[in-house]
Amino acid sequence: MISLGFHIDAADPATAARAGALSTPHGEIRTPAFMPVGTRATVKGVTPEQLVAIGAQVVLANAYHLFLRPGTDVVHDAGGIHRFMGWDRAVLTDSGGFQVFSLADTVRLHDDGVEFRSIVDGARHFWTPEDNMRIQMDLGADIVMQLDQCPPYPADKDFVASAVRRSAEWAARCKAAHTRGDQALFGIVQGGVHADLRAESVARLVDIGFEGYGIGGYSVGEPHDLMLESLAPVAELLPSDRPRYLMGVGNPTTMLEAIGLGVDLFDCVLPTRTARMGTAFSSEGRMNLRNARYARDFGPLDPACGCPVCSSYSRAYLRHLVSTKEMLGSMLLSLHNLHVLIALAGQAREAVLCGRYGAFLESWRSGSGADDY
Amino acid sequence: MISLGFHIDAADPATAARAGALSTPHGEIRTPAFMPVGTRATVKGVTPEQLVAIGAQVVLANAYHLFLRPGTDVVHDAGGIHRFMGWDRAVLTDSGGFQVFSLADTVRLHDDGVEFRSIVDGARHFWTPEDNMRIQMDLGADIVMQLDQCPPYPADKDFVASAVRRSAEWAARCKAAHTRGDQALFGIVQGGVHADLRAESVARLVDIGFEGYGIGGYSVGEPHDLMLESLAPVAELLPSDRPRYLMGVGNPTTMLEAIGLGVDLFDCVLPTRTARMGTAFSSEGRMNLRNARYARDFGPLDPACGCPVCSSYSRAYLRHLVSTKEMLGSMLLSLHNLHVLIALAGQAREAVLCGRYGAFLESWRSGSGADDY
Repeated sequence: MISLGFHIDAADPATAARAGALSTPHGEIRTPAFMPVGTRATVKGVTPEQLVAIGAQVVLANAYHLFLRPGTDVVHDAGGIHRFMGWDRAVLTDSGGFQVFSLADTVRLHDDGVEFRSIVDGARHFWTPEDNMRIQMDLGADIVMQLDQCPPYPADKDFVASAVRRSAEWAARCKAAHTRGDQALFGIVQGGVHADLRAESVARLVDIGFEGYGIGGYSVGEPHDLMLESLAPVAELLPSDRPRYLMGVGNPTTMLEAIGLGVDLFDCVLPTRTARMGTAFSSEGRMNLRNARYARDFGPLDPACGCPVCSSYSRAYLRHLVSTKEMLGSMLLSLHNLHVLIALAGQAREAVLCGRYGAFLESWRSGSGADDY
Repeated sequence: MISLGFHIDAADPATAARAGALSTPHGEIRTPAFMPVGTRATVKGVTPEQLVAIGAQVVLANAYHLFLRPGTDVVHDAGGIHRFMGWDRAVLTDSGGFQVFSLADTVRLHDDGVEFRSIVDGARHFWTPEDNMRIQMDLGADIVMQLDQCPPYPADKDFVASAVRRSAEWAARCKAAHTRGDQALFGIVQGGVHADLRAESVARLVDIGFEGYGIGGYSVGEPHDLMLESLAPVAELLPSDRPRYLMGVGNPTTMLEAIGLGVDLFDCVLPTRTARMGTAFSSEGRMNLRNARYARDFGPLDPACGCPVCSSYSRAYLRHLVSTKEMLGSMLLSLHNLHVLIALAGQAREAVLCGRYGAFLESWRSGSGADDY
């Protein structure tokens, strides 16, 4: 059932970049777009009002974490994730498969599903693709991701191949089980850095047919060049009339390169996590605000940035907050860093609309932000 | 030099409560008023915009902490505390004397001043009253407190008596040294729970003459009844045409009782500190949101509260945030708790303006909030 309208507003003449728009029951998402991560139904340190103020159109939440706490039923009975967290724009839930494989104790993979023990309370759980779809339907996001198997990097090619196969089988089962009409289901392409496996994964998913395609299994420690090299043909193979979502990528340079290859959506914990470590993104690259050089710097965080933080606070004050470990430091830097990525994706969109993404990307590559991986 | 206008709008007929207004260079403070504490130039977990939204008229900052980090000169060179922290309403700085005596290493008290070693970097410092005035003038708050000696509780009467004497001597020296015309200096009454010492302290301070009077040395572990009993004559003795500030008190019941005795201003870290522990003030008394009873409670935090948090979030969501230790939990509960105290002081003010504070206080004493010490 098609619940997600997606159309392309413009395709860049020199690159594979697109500008598009997804319609969801909770508003439109103009792409390319960066999606803040709100794992446990909160984007750490930032209120929904602040997210609106910096132009966030959609946030992520994670089904694994919400399944464990507070429990799917609590979110469902609260009226769904939007009501629960006080966010009335779009929400995308990740299946939690990645977390199961990386966070849970004693994970046992079966063809039928995955068995795991909660690190919160030690309880044992078993998820089939159908179970996971029920959870995500109950959580009530606008976009949900299939339950997939994401291999680590590096991994044996055989292991990656079996993950591709299992993920494709589970994709089909997710589609069959996913019966909620106001919710769009995305498949997830796997295959590691193996061109043939990536192609197989795409083919199998497209054969099943999804409203959008996540590109998983990257940003797991592989070198950036290798990743982009591997990503390019994946984006070419995916249907052009469906959104492409590169999962777990959110550093400025990789995001812009990937947009050039035809990716529309991005998510990453980097902006908020690095903010809590006292680091700010800026037009001059990353700034570690613990550095003594900022102690008496009364200028704005980034003179080129128009966010609420850069309009109101000095580097000296932010450095003071960071060095005294004050909560406001994490809050303000998180807001700023999210704004940087959201605004950058917005600028990318405008460049595509004007048919000049090639020049935009070239300019970035030769600028001070380009080393920001 | 008078820089602080203070006038009484109304005096309650049945109690000693007053409603007044202080004019400062950064706006008016209508009293009774609760002052959020922003020790290190930030009210923990709350932005200046949010403070405005909940009606905060004035915030506290602490000279000891700011002297150590980022340093008085940094705040001064930023343009003063208001510019530094992005707050353009009133600011009151405490001298930091209490912190020196309770936090610093190796404190040595002299008649001339206090010697202490910073717990941040071990550096040795010596503060005379004149040094402290220079620091607070440089920080640039609207209201500054004298450097005093605050004894612990319990303490020998002789010790308390010597603290009264030393504080009065330092009060005179502070007044002589305080030469900033757009800044009001308050003396601080000491004397523990000894009526004669309290009276002596008041007499000595009034003789010197201050724009307002802090009442220190309470809220240090003494029983509440004993404190109120001791406070009553202090408030009676203080000049009625000057604001009275009960330092370190901010639980609802004590605040309302003290207003009935003639106190105008209050500060306390309780609302924000208890918020970070997952506890909310409410019209039904304190709520420990970690409690499982809230897990599926989808009603507002306090149906009787009009703050932004109670308008937007459920108890279940707040409990989820608290139990998963999410920053947003601390942020939202801090905002709510501050609003409760600010609003309660505002209601007290209205009751005084209507000449019915006695009934207001009686109603509180028999209500569900009364056990909230």
